[in-house]
Amino acid sequence: MSSHIELVTTGSELLSGRTANTHARTLGDAIAPLGMDLLRDTTVPDSLSGIEDAVRSALSRVDIVLVSGGLGPTSDDLTREAVAGIVGKGLVIDDEALRRIRERYERSKRVLTESVQRHALVVEGADVLQNAEGLAPGERISWKGKTIFLLPGPPREFQSVLTQSVIPWLTANAAATPPVTTIFQVTGIGESDIVTRLEGSGFPPPGVDVAYCARPGLVEVRISASREHASQVTGCAGLVRNRLGLHIFAEKRVTLEEVVGQLLRKRGETVAVAESCTGGLVGHRIATIPGSSDYFLGGVISYANASKERELGVKQDTLERHGAVSAETAREMAEGVRSRFGSTYGLSITGIAGPSGGTPEKPVGLVFVAVADAAGCEANERRFAGTRSAVQEWSSQIALDWLRLRILNQG
Amino acid sequence: MSSHIELVTTGSELLSGRTANTHARTLGDAIAPLGMDLLRDTTVPDSLSGIEDAVRSALSRVDIVLVSGGLGPTSDDLTREAVAGIVGKGLVIDDEALRRIRERYERSKRVLTESVQRHALVVEGADVLQNAEGLAPGERISWKGKTIFLLPGPPREFQSVLTQSVIPWLTANAAATPPVTTIFQVTGIGESDIVTRLEGSGFPPPGVDVAYCARPGLVEVRISASREHASQVTGCAGLVRNRLGLHIFAEKRVTLEEVVGQLLRKRGETVAVAESCTGGLVGHRIATIPGSSDYFLGGVISYANASKERELGVKQDTLERHGAVSAETAREMAEGVRSRFGSTYGLSITGIAGPSGGTPEKPVGLVFVAVADAAGCEANERRFAGTRSAVQEWSSQIALDWLRLRILNQG
Repeated sequence: MSSHIELVTTGSELLSGRTANTHARTLGDAIAPLGMDLLRDTTVPDSLSGIEDAVRSALSRVDIVLVSGGLGPTSDDLTREAVAGIVGKGLVIDDEALRRIRERYERSKRVLTESVQRHALVVEGADVLQNAEGLAPGERISWKGKTIFLLPGPPREFQSVLTQSVIPWLTANAAATPPVTTIFQVTGIGESDIVTRLEGSGFPPPGVDVAYCARPGLVEVRISASREHASQVTGCAGLVRNRLGLHIFAEKRVTLEEVVGQLLRKRGETVAVAESCTGGLVGHRIATIPGSSDYFLGGVISYANASKERELGVKQDTLERHGAVSAETAREMAEGVRSRFGSTYGLSITGIAGPSGGTPEKPVGLVFVAVADAAGCEANERRFAGTRSAVQEWSSQIALDWLRLRILNQG
Repeated sequence: MSSHIELVTTGSELLSGRTANTHARTLGDAIAPLGMDLLRDTTVPDSLSGIEDAVRSALSRVDIVLVSGGLGPTSDDLTREAVAGIVGKGLVIDDEALRRIRERYERSKRVLTESVQRHALVVEGADVLQNAEGLAPGERISWKGKTIFLLPGPPREFQSVLTQSVIPWLTANAAATPPVTTIFQVTGIGESDIVTRLEGSGFPPPGVDVAYCARPGLVEVRISASREHASQVTGCAGLVRNRLGLHIFAEKRVTLEEVVGQLLRKRGETVAVAESCTGGLVGHRIATIPGSSDYFLGGVISYANASKERELGVKQDTLERHGAVSAETAREMAEGVRSRFGSTYGLSITGIAGPSGGTPEKPVGLVFVAVADAAGCEANERRFAGTRSAVQEWSSQIALDWLRLRILNQG
């Protein structure tokens, strides 16, 4: 049986801007460990002909098709009808599903209307898949050697039926040998620079796939190959480590703030932040990690210049001679917040996020970050292009990375 | 010309579980005011045949097709090739795009490699659409009376080219009669409470559609009808204003931080923040608004208790008797930051974001926000369910809302 799957996502709300479609990501993530690929996601509105067309077309390409949504009781829930039409069956009430609906309604003392009972309608002959999170069950339908799964649309219910019923069935009936994969989280260097450093002179070797996925301030590099090329992946991974060095901050799916937090926790060290143009973003990112109060002491948002002097002890002379956006001010901010909060590290950012406020010498996107510790203080200058929030996001990323490198260099 | 659009989203990362597909939502949202419908989103991996098949198939159903992603410099960026093949054209370097890439690289002092220059490749004869957020431009291609748009995949770049180039073109060439719509941004009250307050006794009247879209800390209520029912929309809107009152913070798509910023700017007032469990999120949200330095002075992230005393002047006695998470501490934090920064308003948050740190009396999700001004200081207690980041997001939302209400009540 094929290791390819297609998804048909139904729901007008997914195309009108009201709701984001999370099913493709959830499904792709769940089947990757089985060595299976999601080949396509077709999202269509709640229309009988649209659903029919998308499902028929998917069945012409692959042997396993998942259809999500449209299993509710209202007139725009049309998935059952569409699929019943394709496989030439009728709809019947599933007694077990109806019993569970009755039970839920009795428990919460609500009145069971006829409309609600429509949740128990399934395609004749389908294997009914329990839905622990809601009223509409999932279904597995066999037809001409192919398999069609119907899953409820609400993300929690979709995830539940997927985990409880679909994945076990796929594992038993369709799983292939998963590829051998190594992933790298890379920061401080752009996608094209990474490509330039890595590719060429035999990289990647035949049989090895390299994929890049760029997000703000971060590129994920993924190297994979089938089992028989496993040793090649090991070789390539070594090469990636050599060529990207400390720009790699992790070899799994974690954030930079998690990695920095783990480093600080392991060493029993603490940090405080002094933020100007980011307004608190670095502090917030550190604070998103559970337990960060063990190493994050807090900080100062020195948005106005006066607060840089008053709260952080930046010298008036420094501000006058070098300006608020300068390596000198960044260093005094980092040292100031470190001494006020008594932390191991003081981390600072000052820059021009734009869109206004730039000058020829100090353009929008110019940012200085600095880290102070007992050994001294170093600043780093960067220039970013893009909108205000892009500059802010990038700034927070390089600040966290600058801190990570400082911690590591003290190894 | 048709008012239907299809989207073809390319990118293996969208099907492998690595990234969520946000383009369908963004596009659906952007074309709704033009009276246009997104008829289908087909998401395919980075494969030449997959992209070709999906684009051809979309072109067989509608006159306008958007293709996103695959415009980068690497070997898995195949959209240009696929579409060039369909329309029977070659690829050429666009001089203006290349000039902009050079400029960006010179500004940030990076070396321009040959690989990077591939960003400037476009389909011969295409109208090139500037990308203010990245290197790869968008394209508009006319072919056999149909129109194909190519847009870069990174969400920020997709949004930018969509807003700058695609929407203006659609408005001029394809827009239908849009429905009459009023939208309300509502905060401080949940979706089911809103439904209970609004619906029943003839609301909504026949011909008028009401839709609710809930996001963390925010519900958008949308009332719409066709032109001939326009007067009904006006009537309904009045009713919504009556029944939801000050919970409505805007009647257009703006954020709470924008509304608060506008209020402060109009009154020539300023704010400083004192944040505990949010770690800087409120400050960051205020600082995302261009020009916020006119009214945002900065603040203190008092994550550790010691800093609440030292930086904000919270009394040791208050912390010992009432705890760090209490109305009393919230008030002293707000007063403390106001007096240190000399701002019109001091805004504070203290709470337990979880997942650990809760007690039976002070459970995870308990949050106090306070606003201080010349007239005094008031605290507000709330309890939220959900993950750590949900509690942080909700907290920042009610803090900004508490500030908004304080400003308005002094009207």
